[in-house]
Amino acid sequence: MDAEGPVNRMRLRRMGIDTYQEPVLYMRRDCHVCHAEGFEAQSRVEVALNGHHIVATLNVVDVDFLPESEAGLSDAAWRLLGAQPGDVATLRHPPPLESLGHVRAKVYGRRFTPSSLRAVIEDVAAGHYSDLQLAAFVTACAGRLDPGETEALTRAMVDVGERMDWGPGLVMDKHCVGGLPGNRTSMLIVPIVAACGLRMPKTSSRAITSPSGTADTMETVTQVDLDMARMRQVVERTGGCIAWGGAVRLSPADDILIRVERPLDLDSEGQLVASILSKKAAAGATHVLIDMPVGPTAKVRSAEAAAKLSALLGGVAHKLGLQLRITQTDGSAPVGRGIGPALEARDVLSVLRCQPDAPADLAERSLLLAGQLLELGGAAAPGAGMDLAAQVLADGRALQKFGEICEAQGGFREPERARYTQPVLALRSGNVVGVDNRRLSRIAKLAGAPKAACAGIDLHIRPGEFVERGQPLYTLHAASPGTLAYAVDYAHAQPGTVQVAEDE
Amino acid sequence: MDAEGPVNRMRLRRMGIDTYQEPVLYMRRDCHVCHAEGFEAQSRVEVALNGHHIVATLNVVDVDFLPESEAGLSDAAWRLLGAQPGDVATLRHPPPLESLGHVRAKVYGRRFTPSSLRAVIEDVAAGHYSDLQLAAFVTACAGRLDPGETEALTRAMVDVGERMDWGPGLVMDKHCVGGLPGNRTSMLIVPIVAACGLRMPKTSSRAITSPSGTADTMETVTQVDLDMARMRQVVERTGGCIAWGGAVRLSPADDILIRVERPLDLDSEGQLVASILSKKAAAGATHVLIDMPVGPTAKVRSAEAAAKLSALLGGVAHKLGLQLRITQTDGSAPVGRGIGPALEARDVLSVLRCQPDAPADLAERSLLLAGQLLELGGAAAPGAGMDLAAQVLADGRALQKFGEICEAQGGFREPERARYTQPVLALRSGNVVGVDNRRLSRIAKLAGAPKAACAGIDLHIRPGEFVERGQPLYTLHAASPGTLAYAVDYAHAQPGTVQVAEDE
Repeated sequence: MDAEGPVNRMRLRRMGIDTYQEPVLYMRRDCHVCHAEGFEAQSRVEVALNGHHIVATLNVVDVDFLPESEAGLSDAAWRLLGAQPGDVATLRHPPPLESLGHVRAKVYGRRFTPSSLRAVIEDVAAGHYSDLQLAAFVTACAGRLDPGETEALTRAMVDVGERMDWGPGLVMDKHCVGGLPGNRTSMLIVPIVAACGLRMPKTSSRAITSPSGTADTMETVTQVDLDMARMRQVVERTGGCIAWGGAVRLSPADDILIRVERPLDLDSEGQLVASILSKKAAAGATHVLIDMPVGPTAKVRSAEAAAKLSALLGGVAHKLGLQLRITQTDGSAPVGRGIGPALEARDVLSVLRCQPDAPADLAERSLLLAGQLLELGGAAAPGAGMDLAAQVLADGRALQKFGEICEAQGGFREPERARYTQPVLALRSGNVVGVDNRRLSRIAKLAGAPKAACAGIDLHIRPGEFVERGQPLYTLHAASPGTLAYAVDYAHAQPGTVQVAEDE
Repeated sequence: MDAEGPVNRMRLRRMGIDTYQEPVLYMRRDCHVCHAEGFEAQSRVEVALNGHHIVATLNVVDVDFLPESEAGLSDAAWRLLGAQPGDVATLRHPPPLESLGHVRAKVYGRRFTPSSLRAVIEDVAAGHYSDLQLAAFVTACAGRLDPGETEALTRAMVDVGERMDWGPGLVMDKHCVGGLPGNRTSMLIVPIVAACGLRMPKTSSRAITSPSGTADTMETVTQVDLDMARMRQVVERTGGCIAWGGAVRLSPADDILIRVERPLDLDSEGQLVASILSKKAAAGATHVLIDMPVGPTAKVRSAEAAAKLSALLGGVAHKLGLQLRITQTDGSAPVGRGIGPALEARDVLSVLRCQPDAPADLAERSLLLAGQLLELGGAAAPGAGMDLAAQVLADGRALQKFGEICEAQGGFREPERARYTQPVLALRSGNVVGVDNRRLSRIAKLAGAPKAACAGIDLHIRPGEFVERGQPLYTLHAASPGTLAYAVDYAHAQPGTVQVAEDE
């Protein structure tokens, strides 16, 4: 390490710029540290404060709002460093990133060893990899991790984060490979499974690009922002929970790698398996059900792809000591009628309450998966799981358990209803031949989902049904007349969102 | 393409943030377009203005200085789009990047075809690849381009940029693989070669991370910022030129890939060859000399590595119709005495003027390389090139030609001298056993190089020489007393920059 003069200390300022997870540092082009250290745009700079340090990517600025004597930090950098207004940090060239040598070796055809993967994942979780370096790692892995490397990657990802310990006994969990719109089965499965005496502490995500995540939907009926101690209380009292996973630090390297994998769209089986199983192992699960939707527009597109992925998942889970079951489901259509937090919660509640208008597809899917979990956990004999699940739903035990869970998480409330709604009508009569999920999601977000929990879309038709001209195809829900008008305009400009065949 | 509402138009603002070459877009988190389109931090967004469009990476901001109704652009984005203050642009989701499919196929083990590489490089040159996607491409190529793919990559890189046409006849060029500090041989080689009747239009780069680039050094004696027409005039009149390459758009994809390759530190022979040869082919060269320094700290570290790289360079150059000669040189020590634009120019001029104190290593190296070029271009018989070069230098023809070139480029001037200098003295007597080039570069930059052309370091010793305690090791040069004091402080804090062995 070089000796340092007083030249490398600067006051920190929060810039208010969200660069997602990559820490970015902003410094004036004419500042003395840039000059002295030869820092320039895209330099990697180590920022040290009170014994903590991060490595950030430099953006050089020529602006008045950042004084020459201050260094600006992006939201991610500020958060990672734990900075406070007025803090003075030390800036220097970072030490060489030794673990990048292992990535280079992999690029040139060598295998990762468990210790080399551990070194890489430690640096990734510590934020030492730039986005460029993360992309190189992800690319080097894609299609070229063997089962042994996949197992080592999974273990490394678990080891660098927190790990929940639920004590002796079974801990059930589920995961859906590649989400489907409206697929809120977890909110039905958890109460059914818990009502049958199995523990199921479920962590879920918020929406990233979709109109709602399971955590957003659950949040319309109770609190989901539970820390580890609260989660434990809820599970001890009720046997289950449905909490936001973001509040607990499980497999932090996975979150970092996912943000790079998504824009590259590299289907890396090894990384997918490590991502799924590291989260489940870190969450303390012992028995895991994988819901694998298969269909032409799903993440898993064919029976062969499903078989290959299943074999790898099963092999690595076995090595990790996880009991795994994989169920292939229909991945061709959205599930339920509502799109948006409150509308999806309404669907879930209507199933729990056994209402006659409850969406049958959501109910059936949830019973299938819950039944599998009941069999996997020994609460039902092989082949008898779905019947038991159906019984627990029909006799009100699932609804009662859901109420208990909500009560323990902070109290149940009915999901709010939108004050402003407007139907979008069929322009002609004919058969519904297609529903464009991507556009529906966009319209739901335009209407305000997920930020406005009541906003979204209520679908009235399903592919294959016949509609009359002027019949409502779907209804837009919004929290304000302005947002509603805005979404309606856009919906009318997109008449192909629900395709109705020419009625000849 | 989706139909668009009026929602997607926003006024542009130059943010004054230098993100290097990656175009970045800044939008308020609460702006209507982010909301409507579901844009979030790191989204790729197409920005269209007057028929031009770019694809930028989004940073979401929560700041007052950017109004909700405006979209901010980084320097690179502003420049690429050709935006003017007050312009109103359209923002939308970009079309899918089809050529990324070819990169994915390569990741999974397929070969690139010439047309697939062409499609990738077109998109790269057009700025459609994010830095993440560039990193994936670079990683997919590293160590895995065969000679056919390397040739196709080189051709694609030439084809997407400008190409200089010098008409019939030979066009000489040289390239050094991995620079050495002070290695300003081009400023000696060009006048020697041109004085012998061969054409040599040389484009050089400015410093990126070093205290000076050849263009910076040349700029201390004449103008280097020549457009293509000016370059042509100079070469027609004098047979040679030494101009800044940044003013002409040769192999633009190469510049983009280099900025991603550097932080990844992936030694990709195929990409190195494509980078070198695409620039030379685009510059219209017919005969190219490659100076390949070999040494433990040079880019090429061993004789085997040199042989392998030479074979690939030779093979691809042959396919492209380039006459190529490769000369291995000593890559272990810096060349000359000065570090910094004016001090390096002083070294060059002292060689041209045959002054007794001229640095012998710089002279010898330049004569060796010039001799090779004279043989390659048929101006000297095999084996007689270096003698001819020495003669042209000794009899003043090289100096005269250098003067003509400077005159044609805008007039010769003596490089300025620093008003403020201070020696750094040996703390003890002993043999100089090592010189830390990295620290010397840093001190030279601290003293103001390359921005202050007169700033830098004048080395008085070389490894192996004996120094007395109190004897000057090097002298710092600066444009102001403050900068000088600053560099002196730092130099004193780094006594290991020149290592003197204990005198026992």
